[in-house]
Amino acid sequence: MKKKGRILSGSRPTGNMHIGHLMGILQNWAKLQKDYETFFEIADWHALTTYYQDTEKLKENIYSMVADWIASGINPEDATLFVQSDVKEHAELHLLFSMLITVQRLNRNPTVKEMAKSLHLPQNISYGLLGYPILQSADILVYRADIVPIGEDQLPHLELTREIARRFNNLYGKVFPEPKPILTSFPRIPGIDGKRMAKSLGNAIYIRDSAQEIEKKVMQCFTDPKKIRKSDPGHPDGCVVFTYHKIFNSDNVPEIQENCKNGKIGCVECKKNAAKKINEYLLPIREKREKLLAKKETLKEILMDGASKARNETRKTMTLVREAMKLW
Amino acid sequence: MKKKGRILSGSRPTGNMHIGHLMGILQNWAKLQKDYETFFEIADWHALTTYYQDTEKLKENIYSMVADWIASGINPEDATLFVQSDVKEHAELHLLFSMLITVQRLNRNPTVKEMAKSLHLPQNISYGLLGYPILQSADILVYRADIVPIGEDQLPHLELTREIARRFNNLYGKVFPEPKPILTSFPRIPGIDGKRMAKSLGNAIYIRDSAQEIEKKVMQCFTDPKKIRKSDPGHPDGCVVFTYHKIFNSDNVPEIQENCKNGKIGCVECKKNAAKKINEYLLPIREKREKLLAKKETLKEILMDGASKARNETRKTMTLVREAMKLW
Repeated sequence: MKKKGRILSGSRPTGNMHIGHLMGILQNWAKLQKDYETFFEIADWHALTTYYQDTEKLKENIYSMVADWIASGINPEDATLFVQSDVKEHAELHLLFSMLITVQRLNRNPTVKEMAKSLHLPQNISYGLLGYPILQSADILVYRADIVPIGEDQLPHLELTREIARRFNNLYGKVFPEPKPILTSFPRIPGIDGKRMAKSLGNAIYIRDSAQEIEKKVMQCFTDPKKIRKSDPGHPDGCVVFTYHKIFNSDNVPEIQENCKNGKIGCVECKKNAAKKINEYLLPIREKREKLLAKKETLKEILMDGASKARNETRKTMTLVREAMKLW
Repeated sequence: MKKKGRILSGSRPTGNMHIGHLMGILQNWAKLQKDYETFFEIADWHALTTYYQDTEKLKENIYSMVADWIASGINPEDATLFVQSDVKEHAELHLLFSMLITVQRLNRNPTVKEMAKSLHLPQNISYGLLGYPILQSADILVYRADIVPIGEDQLPHLELTREIARRFNNLYGKVFPEPKPILTSFPRIPGIDGKRMAKSLGNAIYIRDSAQEIEKKVMQCFTDPKKIRKSDPGHPDGCVVFTYHKIFNSDNVPEIQENCKNGKIGCVECKKNAAKKINEYLLPIREKREKLLAKKETLKEILMDGASKARNETRKTMTLVREAMKLW
């Protein structure tokens, strides 16, 4: 079947994936893999830009991530799943692109500074962190991907990728497409404290969480302070638990809204209910995940096969790159 | 025979080598190759840090450089000669080292700024040029070289290499030696205008120059303005031509000095004499060089063999690196 284009996307293996990733990124990838030729990268070199001192769990995180992916519906028969560091051409193209972008241009990138700040890194960032968007550009362009599924906050990075592609093509001849974004619109799932769900904030519900853990977390959710007794009228809008219902229990949303407002349901019951629905949704994924992780050698094989398929493409690209640049 | 240590050195293929390189670098390498395990790199990626827009002659320059090297006494049976971009592990280690050095530290490097200035590059340097010393560190350490033959002006770069080696070893466990310099003391050969001999200054005598070209260049040398006639007493100290005699005609130096001071020899005769001696020295090298360049396929084979030997070592190093860092 003719595919609509080629996609590169990826994620840094810095820990387990949470339900925000699941509903936002993974379900989107699972849809895209049918219509597009997809390359999904576990970006272990990118993880080093901020976690170079903390590599103890890197291998475990890679297995965990690929298990999350496959359990969530990414199919290795459709998509190419691989670990970035298995495909050395990413590093080679990164080095060549380094010559095409000025330090000043990279300093204009807001994301690097935010990242450094959010990770409590010193003002004095590493050379690798400053160059993170160049590595990302190489990741995309080494596959000559023409489509990149991203959130709106990632648009500045893609702009740099497009700039590098243009600059290269102008200097040496056309090798790269200027990749276009597919903006993914998905429900933002808040963390249990109502803030953005993030590992670093300790407010995430993970794909691998057990029924007990999910219930415990949902029970901690901050709810309407004016609804103390069941009979008090509640305010579902802006309630985290109600957002969870909207996503994992959509059939019953009108009823819950009604009952909350009219004091026919208490927060404890409502939370238990939400936790149950989240768990029902995650159970088959979690079970598949556990089965996959019990056979790491199979996961390893999938990633090795993926890397081999990836290298087939990156080697073709690097031959074109070297020819265009008239390199050795 | 037990070797005294392992050496990495190299040169950027930005044009032909001149007699300053010959007497300074190449003759030193030819000596070192006997006692040390030597890796000599044609640093084509480094050439891109400043000449990325100008790659038209890169291949030709690589052949020319390896011909210069072998003709000057570097023996591919003793030393490993290779092109940097044939050994992708340089790029991989460069990327990993990028995480260990801050932008601030690189900004303190005086050489990068001087380089940018001398090449009339904009203030706004590329990311690759800023990171040049990291690539150089990867070049050295990917061979776990313990000795680096350098001029005094290169000491700051070696200091960074030693810093990176220390930092890596402290973070992940000992993989790298802290390479030590062998300071090469050799006669500084001035250009025909008395300034530092450099391609960019248009004052260089090249290894490949014909007898006619050499004579023409030496005849242009600036000499003592007070010695207009042969019989005028000359001042050999500080005279470029006299320096050439000291290097290429050392047996006759006392006589020339005497005759110049006493007005027994004129500048024209003295220059012709110097040109003749330089040519006598270069003739066998030039002839060998031409023979080598007539058989590019042999040069290519030498470089391919060298790259293969180099990769044997760099792969061992990268296995140690990945194990120490607990990478995938």
